[in-house]
Amino acid sequence: MSMTWLDNPVKTISQAMRATAQAHQMQLTKPPGSLGRLEELAIRLAAMQDMNKPLADNIHIAIFAADHGIADENVSAFPQAVTTEMVRNFARGGAAISVLAKQLDAVLEVVDLGTVHEPELLPGVIPLRIAAGTASFIKQAAMTEEQLEQALQAGLDSVMRAKQNQAHIYIGGEMGIANTTTAAAVAAALLNKQGADLVGPGTGVDTKGVKHKADIVDRALALHKADMQSPLDILRCVGGFEIVALCGAYIAAAQQGMAVLVDGFISSVAALAAVKIQPEVNEWFFYSHQSAEPGHQHVLQALEAQPLLNLNMRLGEGSGAAVAVSLLRQACACHNEMSTFAEAGVSTGE
Amino acid sequence: MSMTWLDNPVKTISQAMRATAQAHQMQLTKPPGSLGRLEELAIRLAAMQDMNKPLADNIHIAIFAADHGIADENVSAFPQAVTTEMVRNFARGGAAISVLAKQLDAVLEVVDLGTVHEPELLPGVIPLRIAAGTASFIKQAAMTEEQLEQALQAGLDSVMRAKQNQAHIYIGGEMGIANTTTAAAVAAALLNKQGADLVGPGTGVDTKGVKHKADIVDRALALHKADMQSPLDILRCVGGFEIVALCGAYIAAAQQGMAVLVDGFISSVAALAAVKIQPEVNEWFFYSHQSAEPGHQHVLQALEAQPLLNLNMRLGEGSGAAVAVSLLRQACACHNEMSTFAEAGVSTGE
Repeated sequence: MSMTWLDNPVKTISQAMRATAQAHQMQLTKPPGSLGRLEELAIRLAAMQDMNKPLADNIHIAIFAADHGIADENVSAFPQAVTTEMVRNFARGGAAISVLAKQLDAVLEVVDLGTVHEPELLPGVIPLRIAAGTASFIKQAAMTEEQLEQALQAGLDSVMRAKQNQAHIYIGGEMGIANTTTAAAVAAALLNKQGADLVGPGTGVDTKGVKHKADIVDRALALHKADMQSPLDILRCVGGFEIVALCGAYIAAAQQGMAVLVDGFISSVAALAAVKIQPEVNEWFFYSHQSAEPGHQHVLQALEAQPLLNLNMRLGEGSGAAVAVSLLRQACACHNEMSTFAEAGVSTGE
Repeated sequence: MSMTWLDNPVKTISQAMRATAQAHQMQLTKPPGSLGRLEELAIRLAAMQDMNKPLADNIHIAIFAADHGIADENVSAFPQAVTTEMVRNFARGGAAISVLAKQLDAVLEVVDLGTVHEPELLPGVIPLRIAAGTASFIKQAAMTEEQLEQALQAGLDSVMRAKQNQAHIYIGGEMGIANTTTAAAVAAALLNKQGADLVGPGTGVDTKGVKHKADIVDRALALHKADMQSPLDILRCVGGFEIVALCGAYIAAAQQGMAVLVDGFISSVAALAAVKIQPEVNEWFFYSHQSAEPGHQHVLQALEAQPLLNLNMRLGEGSGAAVAVSLLRQACACHNEMSTFAEAGVSTGE
C-alpha cells in the first residue's frame, strides 16, 4: 500500500461543455438567471460530466464509522458505545441517513474503519477495521503512517465501488463519537487557528463542555506542533479514520471525475484537507449546507464555499448532503427538459 | 357570488398533535434538534394534518395566469404576449414548473383568469377568463368589485379541486407580464411603504426601469389613496387577477385545513393580503424561499416568515415552492420512518 495515488491528477472539467450549458440555459423559457443557483448547479454538473444532459440520478452514499481515542476526555454528550450502535442502526434502516437514502433510491454503504466495540456482521456494512479506534491525540499521534494509508485507501476503494455502480454523485458521511473535536483539531491545524475558533456543541455539550473541547484541541496542537508539517501529518497526528477516509474519497472522486456533494462540518474539514493536498479537487465539490456547528463557517470560508442549504442541521451521517440531492436533481430536470424560447414559441425579452 | 366566505374561520391546528410530534422527534436516533428545520417542518405538518405520520406526497400546483393593464407603461423586460405564450408552454410541459411538477408527480392545473391574447383550448388549462387583463391602475381601479369576487372565488375553487384530489400540500403559482409592478403596488399599500421599497428588476429591467416602476407605484398609491381603506380595496384598486386568486386560495386552504407552500415575491404579497384579511391563515403557510427580487424581504419580514431556501431564484410560476417540496418530503420521511433510541438499542445522551 502507498499514498502515491494521492498525487495523481484530478480529472479536467470540460470548459467547452460549461460554455454549451451556459448558452443552453439562456435559451430556456425563463428570464435569464431566474432559476438562480439551480442554473449554476446544472452548468457545473454538465461541465463535470461532459454531458449535454447532466444527471444526478444514481447516488452513492458511503458512511465511514470509527471511534476516537479522544472520547476518553469526555468531549461528547453521548457515550462511545453509540458509534457501534449507530452502525447497527444504519444497517437496519433506522437512522436519518438510512431513511433519506431509501427515499433517494441511493446506494448506502457503511464502512466500519474501527469502532471500540466490534459489531457483528451486518448487511451493508463493510468491515475494514483498521484498529479499535484511534489513539488519544492529546497523548500521542492519533494513528500510525500505515493506518493513515489504510484509511485513505478505504476512501479510494469506496469511490471505485461508486464508479462501478455508475454513480453520478458521491456523498461521504461519517459517524464517530467525539469526531467534532477531532475535526476541530484538524481544521485548527490546517488553518492555523485556535481550538476556540473551531469547536462547538457537537451532539450537544454545554458551554463548559465547548470550552473543554477548545482546551483539548489547543493541547493537541501544542503537543504535535513540530510533527505537523503537511496536511497528511496533521491527519495522522490529530485526525480520525473516518475523516481520513473522507479525504481520500474526495481526492479519488475528483481523480475519477465524479461530482461530490460534501455534507457538513466534519465532511468539510475532510474536504479542506483534500484541497490542501491537491487544490484542484475543490472544482469537483458541491457544498450542501451550512451546519449549525459554529466552526463550519471558518472551514467553508477557507474553501470559498457557498453552501446550498442553511437548515440549521448538525447531524452528520451525510444527511445534509442527502437533503441537497433534490436540488441537483431539480436543476438537471430543468436543464434537460425545459423548452427553449424557439421550441415553445415564446417571445424573448427586449 | 359573494365574498362572505372569506370570513369563515380558519381550521384549528392540533396543539395536542404538535406536542406528540415534538416528543416523537426527541425519541428518534439523532442528537435532539440535529435535523434542524426538518424537525420543525415535520412537527408543524403533523399538527396541521393532525396525523402521527404527516404526509407531503400529493402536491397540487395551481398556476394563475392573467394580464395587467399596467404593462402598457413599459414596466417589463418581456412583451405582454408572453403571458399567453407561457400558458401554452405550461400546458405543453416546457416551462420550469411543468418540469418540476412532473418530477414531483404533482397535479398541475393552469387557471387562465384573463390574458390579453385568448389562448386556444389547451389540456390542463381551465378557462376562467374574467376579462382580457386588468385595467391600468394608474388610470383607474384595476378591477371592479365583481371581478375581485370572481378572482377570489377562482382561488377557492382551485383549493376545492386540490381537496378533492386529496392533496397534502397546496402550491399557488402565477404568470402575468408586469406582475412584479402590481405586487409591489399591493405590498406598498398594505405595508404603507413607498414604491422604491418594493420594486425590483422583475424579469430583468435595468436601474432606470426599476426607478420607473417605483414612480408608477407611487402614482398609483396617490391616485387610489382615498379608496384603499381595506386589504380588499387595495387588491381591487392596484391588484391583479392572479394575485387576488392566490389570496383567495391561501385563505381557502387555511379554512379547509390544507398546508400551503408559498412561492416567492408575488405569492408572498398575496399571502400578506390574506394575512391582513384574516391573520390566523399564516399558521397554515410554509415559506419556501427568499427570492432575489429585493422587495421580497420586506414582505417576508411583515409576515414574520423564515423562508426555507435562498437560491437566488426569481422565476415565479410556483417554482421555488416546487423546489421546497423535497424538504417537506424528507422531513416527513425522517419523522415517520426513523427508529427511536429504544427501538434501535442506541444509548441516549448524558
